[in-house]
Amino acid sequence: MSAKTPHPSRRRPPAFDLPQFLETRTATVNAALDRFLPCTTMKPKTIHKAMRYSLFAGGKRMRPALVLAAAAACGGRESDALPLACAVECIHTYSLVHDDLPAMDNDDYRRGKLTNHKVFGEGIAILAGDALLTQAFELAAQCKGWQRYSHRQIILEIARASGSLQLIAGQVADLEGEGKKTSAAQLKYIHERKTSALLCCSARLGGMSANCSAAQLKALTDFGYHVGLAFQVIDDILDVTQTSEQLGKTAGKDTQAQKATYPSIVGLEKSRKIATDLTNKAFAALKVFKGRAVALEALAEFLLKRDR
Amino acid sequence: MSAKTPHPSRRRPPAFDLPQFLETRTATVNAALDRFLPCTTMKPKTIHKAMRYSLFAGGKRMRPALVLAAAAACGGRESDALPLACAVECIHTYSLVHDDLPAMDNDDYRRGKLTNHKVFGEGIAILAGDALLTQAFELAAQCKGWQRYSHRQIILEIARASGSLQLIAGQVADLEGEGKKTSAAQLKYIHERKTSALLCCSARLGGMSANCSAAQLKALTDFGYHVGLAFQVIDDILDVTQTSEQLGKTAGKDTQAQKATYPSIVGLEKSRKIATDLTNKAFAALKVFKGRAVALEALAEFLLKRDR
Repeated sequence: MSAKTPHPSRRRPPAFDLPQFLETRTATVNAALDRFLPCTTMKPKTIHKAMRYSLFAGGKRMRPALVLAAAAACGGRESDALPLACAVECIHTYSLVHDDLPAMDNDDYRRGKLTNHKVFGEGIAILAGDALLTQAFELAAQCKGWQRYSHRQIILEIARASGSLQLIAGQVADLEGEGKKTSAAQLKYIHERKTSALLCCSARLGGMSANCSAAQLKALTDFGYHVGLAFQVIDDILDVTQTSEQLGKTAGKDTQAQKATYPSIVGLEKSRKIATDLTNKAFAALKVFKGRAVALEALAEFLLKRDR
Repeated sequence: MSAKTPHPSRRRPPAFDLPQFLETRTATVNAALDRFLPCTTMKPKTIHKAMRYSLFAGGKRMRPALVLAAAAACGGRESDALPLACAVECIHTYSLVHDDLPAMDNDDYRRGKLTNHKVFGEGIAILAGDALLTQAFELAAQCKGWQRYSHRQIILEIARASGSLQLIAGQVADLEGEGKKTSAAQLKYIHERKTSALLCCSARLGGMSANCSAAQLKALTDFGYHVGLAFQVIDDILDVTQTSEQLGKTAGKDTQAQKATYPSIVGLEKSRKIATDLTNKAFAALKVFKGRAVALEALAEFLLKRDR
């Protein structure tokens, strides 16, 4: 590469249209989820209605977009990545359904709609979460398979990111931290697990579905980790600065629940700086793709600048 | 086979010692679960304590025993079946932890001990169930693999038996049936899913870990299905006839919750007859093993005659 060539991770073709990418991929993922999930006419209808209610409640499909964008960066086919994109969305949705329960965050609204247990009752909401988690593994196992990465590796990847040392660990630490003084290090521990783990897993799964190299997988891991942390810092900022209407969920919940957030520990301006630094680290990880990770770059920038 | 040879499925060597089989296999499974599960010193300690609390609360390890007995009938090695035996026990335990929650069966005691949410609170109990379910898939994926059956098939087997059309369907139908008039056909639908599905899956996984033939897999499916139904009919009978002390859990719960049971629909004597008939069908399925399914036979008979 000549010294005059701009740094590849900084060069973004002006033609890349993220809104269009998100719109088309959301439609693709929604259609696939609709195809993969049991329909509401199958017995017991309630559980399938409850699963679909939360799955189709207007989620931004950021994790599936990350899977598909990572697959594209590695030159993979979308059809090979799609079932994994759906699997991570099932995991994400299950975690929200359980997180919203009265015994956890006790949220009545999510994305501007009543939460699962407010519509179907707590018992069904617990079971719908269980079913979505189980469905994720069924989806991953149903895939036709990939060249370099086995079903075994893919399932392990999902199980570890979602398990008691990662996603669930984050939920537990979050639950236990309420009303207690939390250090910045503890908050980072929570964010790494509650948010980063599954975003990192999403980026890795996309790469794995495209038979990525070890170097690419390492890059996607770094990218996902930093984007994940940035994502959560911004979530904390939005909880303080936006109204419930803007967010589509109850704003100020973290403050009310005396939950530690970046703004409450380091202040708003420092939090914004942290989010920007994390996003820059995510960009830097993409060097290895030599300009082919345009969708990932655009996604990271979008997540940094989002207002809900 | 000469006409004078006794039917193989009826011939049981007097030497087979089921109590000893159950004792040694329970010890083996407990040791393996202890090895496989994150220990209680790992962060967050609460979730690992909660997972282990219910996992080591004195369960009878019937499903792992079924996995190991089925593997033995097919001439497999115990070490190949053990991780799957642990996986089904994790699934079973998760389903009990969630089933005991106030939003579901609202049980304070299980196997003579306080239920998970009574000790750790509802939030942690929900997360401990989630973590055990996730752990089951991690365990199955961690296996070194089998000759005839892929990780993909094994994961699909577990996911389908535990999913919204089987295990979870049974829980939903059970929850929705409370206080309503239930027909014998509806009750069978619930039992097939709530109990039979995972017992059937256990027998099949044991066979699969031993590279069983298609005929053996079919036999194990029939066996598991009928033993599973018999198991649940007997559970219903014991709920009516035994005291809480004898059962180690609240007796008469089904009657209190106006849940349909076999005794409440067809009476006690007819229920006993149904359980015996189902067990005989289970025995008949074992013909194909030509006398090598001694442990499975003994297990089926033990489950029929159990008093708790």
